[in-house]
Amino acid sequence: MQSYHLDDTIVALATPPGVGAIGVVRLSGPKAFAIANAIFRGKDLSAQPSHTIHYGTIQGADGQLLDEVLVSLFRAPKSYTGEDVVEISCHGSEYILQQVIQLCIAQGARLAKPGEFTLRAFLNGKMDLSQAEAVADLIASDTESAHRLALQQMRGGFSREIENLRRRLIDFASLIELELDFSEEDVEFADRSRLRELVERIRRVILNLLQSFQLGNAIRRGVSTVIAGRPNAGKSTLLNALLQEERAIVSDIPGTTRDTVEEVLNIRGIPFRLIDTAGIRDAQDQIEAVGVERTLEKIRQSALLLYVFDLTALEPDEVRADLQKLKRQSLHLIVLGNKMDKAAPETLERFRPFESSPEWDFLFLSAAHHQNTEALRELLYRAVVGGQINLESPIVANARHYEALKKALESLDDVLRGLESGLSSDLVALDIRRALQYLGEITGEVTTDDLLENIFSRFC
Amino acid sequence: MQSYHLDDTIVALATPPGVGAIGVVRLSGPKAFAIANAIFRGKDLSAQPSHTIHYGTIQGADGQLLDEVLVSLFRAPKSYTGEDVVEISCHGSEYILQQVIQLCIAQGARLAKPGEFTLRAFLNGKMDLSQAEAVADLIASDTESAHRLALQQMRGGFSREIENLRRRLIDFASLIELELDFSEEDVEFADRSRLRELVERIRRVILNLLQSFQLGNAIRRGVSTVIAGRPNAGKSTLLNALLQEERAIVSDIPGTTRDTVEEVLNIRGIPFRLIDTAGIRDAQDQIEAVGVERTLEKIRQSALLLYVFDLTALEPDEVRADLQKLKRQSLHLIVLGNKMDKAAPETLERFRPFESSPEWDFLFLSAAHHQNTEALRELLYRAVVGGQINLESPIVANARHYEALKKALESLDDVLRGLESGLSSDLVALDIRRALQYLGEITGEVTTDDLLENIFSRFC
Repeated sequence: MQSYHLDDTIVALATPPGVGAIGVVRLSGPKAFAIANAIFRGKDLSAQPSHTIHYGTIQGADGQLLDEVLVSLFRAPKSYTGEDVVEISCHGSEYILQQVIQLCIAQGARLAKPGEFTLRAFLNGKMDLSQAEAVADLIASDTESAHRLALQQMRGGFSREIENLRRRLIDFASLIELELDFSEEDVEFADRSRLRELVERIRRVILNLLQSFQLGNAIRRGVSTVIAGRPNAGKSTLLNALLQEERAIVSDIPGTTRDTVEEVLNIRGIPFRLIDTAGIRDAQDQIEAVGVERTLEKIRQSALLLYVFDLTALEPDEVRADLQKLKRQSLHLIVLGNKMDKAAPETLERFRPFESSPEWDFLFLSAAHHQNTEALRELLYRAVVGGQINLESPIVANARHYEALKKALESLDDVLRGLESGLSSDLVALDIRRALQYLGEITGEVTTDDLLENIFSRFC
Repeated sequence: MQSYHLDDTIVALATPPGVGAIGVVRLSGPKAFAIANAIFRGKDLSAQPSHTIHYGTIQGADGQLLDEVLVSLFRAPKSYTGEDVVEISCHGSEYILQQVIQLCIAQGARLAKPGEFTLRAFLNGKMDLSQAEAVADLIASDTESAHRLALQQMRGGFSREIENLRRRLIDFASLIELELDFSEEDVEFADRSRLRELVERIRRVILNLLQSFQLGNAIRRGVSTVIAGRPNAGKSTLLNALLQEERAIVSDIPGTTRDTVEEVLNIRGIPFRLIDTAGIRDAQDQIEAVGVERTLEKIRQSALLLYVFDLTALEPDEVRADLQKLKRQSLHLIVLGNKMDKAAPETLERFRPFESSPEWDFLFLSAAHHQNTEALRELLYRAVVGGQINLESPIVANARHYEALKKALESLDDVLRGLESGLSSDLVALDIRRALQYLGEITGEVTTDDLLENIFSRFC
């Protein structure tokens, strides 16, 4: 931690760049009040209490009036960073904001690096590392689920639970290490059965978290979903039907970005990246399209497959044959009998057995007439959110956390094996220490400058 | 004014759209505190004093936590709009900010129209109309001069002076109108010589302001400047030399936009739009380029002309002939003897008389070696800022103000003519009233809904 100095005062624009009614320049550090006072005219800020707002003016370097501002004061430790913080709310002109930042620098502040305010909040113990990481996710979140995920993590999420379990594991490690001092005497300070119990419990927590990563990742990056089927099965109609409903649903939330990525379908906050394989129909020799390599390649890379077929054109056996070719380990398959409005009752009856297959979800629908497309949305949502994992329980969405948890799990498995095989205390202690290290990396109890650099540099 | 209701509460994003550390949602109106209180958890905001900041959370419509926020409170009339104002400082995620705005609307707020917060500040007497207009200019200003101009206007600028003179003129108008009631008796309540004196004074103020409009416009829109000269005179070299210095000078001010408009030269905050006429060399038959129609057309549209010639190639008489063709009413002419480093001392002597001509500014320079280019920058600056008008005195930059001032001046001229010709009181009073009307439009003493609509709709 030696390379992070907290004795200087940092400054940066806190609001987005661009033109707005107001823009806010933020100062944090021991000299925040002194620097603000040096450029502010109106009253003596150093005499003012925390959490108060003061009207005044900022003078430019030439002594000329630069702007009329409102200054908000936060005294350590009751601030975002835990340090003295001053926020200067100016008129939202880039010229003014840049000048104010330059004035602060001239008075001894340093331009903050990306994420440095949040890094300071972490270094000053205002939040743990996983909470600090969540701040960037929270700001970047543009769907409800991504927002909820980030907020949950920022509010503590699973890190508090991990931290509690970790502390108890530390106690065991200490006891075992104590035994080493008395190794001649063959004593056991650490109750092995209680240790095993604790390790098992931590393993279960970690396993649940690891399982949640797929969902967490889906929420952050979108679920890759391929729409496949023979020509004229209605793939494009289905895509349009889904996206049209989507458009209607998001239109009352201005500012969401999905309009720029045409094929992203947002179902209750979970983004599905829809890949239509209709393009392969171009080549005549690829008319029997389902088996074609390009489609298979896309399916291999996807998590979800919507297989659409025309109820009035195929027999159940033909559909089964297609599905045999498409099935793959860990691919979630949804089979859609399209054009239900045109199919005869007997046809529907012949496909009924598909509904009870354990290998896929099945739905009759009419993409053209929007029949059952709402039920399809529900199926898609449940395909990702279903099971024990749900949006209310802690979810891991961060690849760094996932890796650390996986390694912690391996170390705990080693601990359990060691206990079973009667491994010597010093080796068990080593495995516990390694698990502790990985768990500590998540919350930041164990950290390095490189790790912090890497995490906070991705802040905008 | 009837169409502007101040009894509802408005809400809008106060910071630029996009991603930042924080974003601020602003509420203004009688229900601002009640609405904020309805969505805020932490403490009862209605019990808190003005100019204080409070930490808490915002709950979404579903009762779920939406964000951790800081709420700033401003009680009427000590706020920007003069009404109760609440600013909610959220994490800078578009999702969160839009949700907070929706929540405020659900609680009874109305989405603010462009400029409506500033409109309310005007309607509530926090600033006059010309000050309110300056807020938009201040936010949009991206050079030092444009910024200073807008700030000066926002701080009162010339409008206070106009308003003072206008009040005294109103007194005269009232006295003259009083005379009408006693018209049978041929009395003079209004001292005609003092009236004439006042009108003359107001005329002088207005004339000064009208003269400043060219500079004000230059600062806001840039000074159109043509670089002309015979082939190989060094026009492009000069352009590059000026722009290169410029680049070096602005590079320490991040966020300025001039990099995107390649031919804008910023000299101490005044933007010069440089137009290089080098392009006309393409056609062989236009080798004697100075006289060519295209160049002349550009010169006709410009305010400033830089005529460059090669000291080693032309005789004084040839230069004089070129200048005769180029001269035009109200065109500021700067003559540049280029390649001074290559010219013999006798050559320089032969051109010395050019330095004392009243028809143009003259400078020896070497564009290639950056000799005297700094002096050229000074000449350019003084060409715009020089004379009686300077950046310290009030400047009119707003076309609406310019038009109103021109019409007020015409009305005042009518008043003077009326007084001299012994026009009847009622007609003089009419002219005074008309002048008052135009002056009042500047500060907003006299206004219409259409005018306000027009002014505030240009806010972003």
